[in-house]
Amino acid sequence: MHMSSPNGKIAEIHQQEAEVKTLEAPAGYRIFNRIVDWITNDRMQLINVTERINEIVRKSGIRDGIVHLQSLHTTTAVFINEWQDALLHDVRAFLDDLVSREEYYRHNDPAYSDCERKNADSHLRGMVMGQSLCLQVRNSAVLLGTWQSIILAEFDGPRSRSMSIQVSGV
Amino acid sequence: MHMSSPNGKIAEIHQQEAEVKTLEAPAGYRIFNRIVDWITNDRMQLINVTERINEIVRKSGIRDGIVHLQSLHTTTAVFINEWQDALLHDVRAFLDDLVSREEYYRHNDPAYSDCERKNADSHLRGMVMGQSLCLQVRNSAVLLGTWQSIILAEFDGPRSRSMSIQVSGV
Amino acid sequence: MHMSSPNGKIAEIHQQEAEVKTLEAPAGYRIFNRIVDWITNDRMQLINVTERINEIVRKSGIRDGIVHLQSLHTTTAVFINEWQDALLHDVRAFLDDLVSREEYYRHNDPAYSDCERKNADSHLRGMVMGQSLCLQVRNSAVLLGTWQSIILAEFDGPRSRSMSIQVSGV
Repeated sequence: MHMSSPNGKIAEIHQQEAEVKTLEAPAGYRIFNRIVDWITNDRMQLINVTERINEIVRKSGIRDGIVHLQSLHTTTAVFINEWQDALLHDVRAFLDDLVSREEYYRHNDPAYSDCERKNADSHLRGMVMGQSLCLQVRNSAVLLGTWQSIILAEFDGPRSRSMSIQVSGV
Repeated sequence: MHMSSPNGKIAEIHQQEAEVKTLEAPAGYRIFNRIVDWITNDRMQLINVTERINEIVRKSGIRDGIVHLQSLHTTTAVFINEWQDALLHDVRAFLDDLVSREEYYRHNDPAYSDCERKNADSHLRGMVMGQSLCLQVRNSAVLLGTWQSIILAEFDGPRSRSMSIQVSGV
Repeated sequence: MHMSSPNGKIAEIHQQEAEVKTLEAPAGYRIFNRIVDWITNDRMQLINVTERINEIVRKSGIRDGIVHLQSLHTTTAVFINEWQDALLHDVRAFLDDLVSREEYYRHNDPAYSDCERKNADSHLRGMVMGQSLCLQVRNSAVLLGTWQSIILAEFDGPRSRSMSIQVSGV
């Protein structure tokens, strides 16, 4: 394994350092686990889970580290975007378009599959968007930019959905 | 940096807490590294690596923490989906369609590129699906939902492919 | 939660183990945080940040662990690909095509949105490609395959962009 050596140019990009902090773990490395459930109402539904995740991070008592989120279902996803009604409408339309529900899929064909939910599109949307997300914990909160929200996406609701949240660090 | 404050509504979503666990690291934080190779047989091939990853997690002796998987090749990907033959057929068809192989690409054009594999489509598939995956370790196993399998995708085989697996925690 | 039991076959795949290493943390678990800014020049721009990230990993003094990268902006992304001019041209063309800028979006429509940047396409590109990336640190460097580079993608430039980099481990 070798480090890649860039052969392109990053001309005209000014870099500026902003913040340095090193933490020698005083209280020691710890792990905090919790599973949270959501009941969804629509086939495709976007849920802003940012505040819920922050509550759990605060409860964990961990000040600096990593929070790992994983939805435990293949027909869901977890990702980041701005939480704005107009944009959320565009997100749903985009995902509808990216993976058509009407297409022929073997997963929906009784000749090939015993799945009765006809949810091949849900599987493909969940696969492309991803079911897990790792974020930084800083000062007992999830580190996010001003416009970044954590979104849990339901692609085959209504159902009950579980997310496993692990906070680790010091 | 400020926390995002959601301006939309999450009405009608019932939340329910399921499990709490905090671990004070008794044996101390540890890291376990291993590289595993796979020989692939087709240009596009999906490989279920779940059991192999679990073997390594068990061998690591780490009970709770994180397992990080990274395929060391740009024309591969690692992601989660249900492992069902009919659905895997749909996944291959979807990825074939999402990134057409027949399109004109500069990367495949000798006038612009010295790559003789004509694998621009493989690069774009690997980029969209992602080459690394971070998952939780709980009770000496990878935490996965009932239908979630870890899939290594070959997009430019047949070749030998290496994945670096790192287990960290307590 | 149960482990998935694969119902498909992985016939003909030869597996071979390559490297074993377990680290008992001698100096203890540590966390090193830094925020780095980039000034971008184009609406869509790809920046190779591999060397910059490696510099920070070296500075952290952490030999083995995890480096977590997060761009703090919804209209950017962080991902891995080969850094080759011809391929980067294909990447830009693919993303342009995957999310059309000309499409109608509510986020760009003053009747629904107060966003004046008309950047719905940028949001959707950032969402699909992802704004965070977790990689392994080995021997005081980011573990990457020969052809893997870390790419920060600007989708709504020119602007100043911040990435938060967290190195944790021993």
